[in-house]
Amino acid sequence: MRIAIDAMGGDNAPDEIIAGAVESIEFLSENDELILVGPHDVIAPQVPSPKAKKAAISVVDAPQVINMDEPPVESLRKKPKSSIAVMSKMAKLHQADAVISAGNTGACVAAFQMRMRNLPGVNRPGIAVVFPTFEGPVTICDVGANIACKPINLYQYSVMAGIYSKNLHGVENPRVGLMSIGQEDAKGNEIVKKAREMMKSDPNMNFVGNIEGRDIFKGICDIAVCDGFVGNVILKLTEGLVDGLFKAIKHELLTEKLRLAMKFKPIITRIYRKYDYNEYGGALLLGINGTALICHGSSKARTIKNAILASKKFYTEKINDKIVECLSRTSIRTDDESR
Amino acid sequence: MRIAIDAMGGDNAPDEIIAGAVESIEFLSENDELILVGPHDVIAPQVPSPKAKKAAISVVDAPQVINMDEPPVESLRKKPKSSIAVMSKMAKLHQADAVISAGNTGACVAAFQMRMRNLPGVNRPGIAVVFPTFEGPVTICDVGANIACKPINLYQYSVMAGIYSKNLHGVENPRVGLMSIGQEDAKGNEIVKKAREMMKSDPNMNFVGNIEGRDIFKGICDIAVCDGFVGNVILKLTEGLVDGLFKAIKHELLTEKLRLAMKFKPIITRIYRKYDYNEYGGALLLGINGTALICHGSSKARTIKNAILASKKFYTEKINDKIVECLSRTSIRTDDESR
Repeated sequence: MRIAIDAMGGDNAPDEIIAGAVESIEFLSENDELILVGPHDVIAPQVPSPKAKKAAISVVDAPQVINMDEPPVESLRKKPKSSIAVMSKMAKLHQADAVISAGNTGACVAAFQMRMRNLPGVNRPGIAVVFPTFEGPVTICDVGANIACKPINLYQYSVMAGIYSKNLHGVENPRVGLMSIGQEDAKGNEIVKKAREMMKSDPNMNFVGNIEGRDIFKGICDIAVCDGFVGNVILKLTEGLVDGLFKAIKHELLTEKLRLAMKFKPIITRIYRKYDYNEYGGALLLGINGTALICHGSSKARTIKNAILASKKFYTEKINDKIVECLSRTSIRTDDESR
Repeated sequence: MRIAIDAMGGDNAPDEIIAGAVESIEFLSENDELILVGPHDVIAPQVPSPKAKKAAISVVDAPQVINMDEPPVESLRKKPKSSIAVMSKMAKLHQADAVISAGNTGACVAAFQMRMRNLPGVNRPGIAVVFPTFEGPVTICDVGANIACKPINLYQYSVMAGIYSKNLHGVENPRVGLMSIGQEDAKGNEIVKKAREMMKSDPNMNFVGNIEGRDIFKGICDIAVCDGFVGNVILKLTEGLVDGLFKAIKHELLTEKLRLAMKFKPIITRIYRKYDYNEYGGALLLGINGTALICHGSSKARTIKNAILASKKFYTEKINDKIVECLSRTSIRTDDESR
């Protein structure tokens, strides 16, 4: 399997990206190949020579860099030799079986969608992230690929995230919740209400009905489906709130006693590690005709390593084939523009 | 001032509601009157006789009760003698200057809107809650009154929340952020983009631009404006995440050492108290022609007491007059349906 990695993506590129790729090698086979995409003169000198019987690692030149805050579509047009643009083209030309980037999310989504196209039967791709909660992992889809969701999109996210959750995280018959503002059937906007009807009518879906924001952490669902605007707010709010809360705890501990704060430190570290979504190696762009992972901008080597391993699992488990098969079997389709 | 309180609202009614009302008396004046609305035979025996030179406390009979999970509009139609229906009518007939309920939020919003009507110039009311963060309080509006916001609604929420934040929390020139999925101007859906243009064009608004979910906790804004669907998810997610995180911390501490867990307990309690939104006494329904507070279903006596005091401040500071005046001065209005 050939995995292309954006060597220039994210705040810690290229050092952490290269380190992550190198770390992953021992978990790969000699049939695997890692392709670092970035300015050859910067990346190549940092790549160690491959060991025998291990996955190969090579560099493909992409001299331009798209910054984190550049407007996605415009930057792709202006920088056809950027790592994101080059990777997407490699995927299109079947020169790479998977693409991974911790760079500009909007540019990744736009480029991957444009070059790789959607899977047959998929109307719009969605980004799925895994939230590690005290009650177990919860997959949330979409967290930002599609901010103007139609009901059919939400329905397809639930199907795709279900297959992903089952095959990648071993969740048998995953429970699907639909994000709304109350558990009762009558709650939610028109799009949510129509999506709920679709989910309810699918006999193969373990649909638990509407969920509220708090339910993500209550162990009542394995999958939370929402539109990309809401999902993006959820993702970033969670990040900010966890940071803010630990800041508050630290402050209180220091006010109390330094010694107590020191004792508490390893516990915080353990919690951070245990509930760290970096463990899951980034977010999958579900519904795309290929394997595409988008990592957090602050990704360290460990995230990249985990993303590489996740991409391999996604590819070898043939998740996309399963999605196509499942969607071809369902009778729930878009029959008019409003869906 | 006459303050009507739903004696049957919320999970801890009527005991905690009555207790909260009684607790508030010492902070009120002899010109104030508290009116507990609920089944007379249940409530009256629990109300202590008023002391001289203190606010009076009375009971208005409302024999029916709307449960927390009943469909709002239907329940109001079926139960015209419920506490929520009776209170709303009292407000309409100027028999009460403020209404407070910890009951069914949907029923409260529907009843208050129907009976009290909107302030002149306000298109749709919005619910404002205060999030106490490490960096200071942040007012979020709307958190569930309006799940199909138009740009003009978002704009008016920012105006109303600004006046509220300034006059109730003493924030001079409050910084307004518009919830989106990226800080760049181009980010967000069409409604957010149009609302941003309105906010930008208001010379009296201290508009900081788009914010992301994490920014609520970063001290970059005093007000976060969003549609009621997103705001409701934010509110409930925060609740669930804080609970989940403390559960995780507790679990780790107990795995470690019981003694350490005991030492940490008072710190958790202090944090809970410090960042407890109950301190703010519930959520204000901004834009309604009157003073209406909606409290969390789990409200205890302290929340109700704080809500009573907040309603008095809202009323005496003439927040509504200020909202009407401010909106009458602005040239930003809805000129077509799409706004």
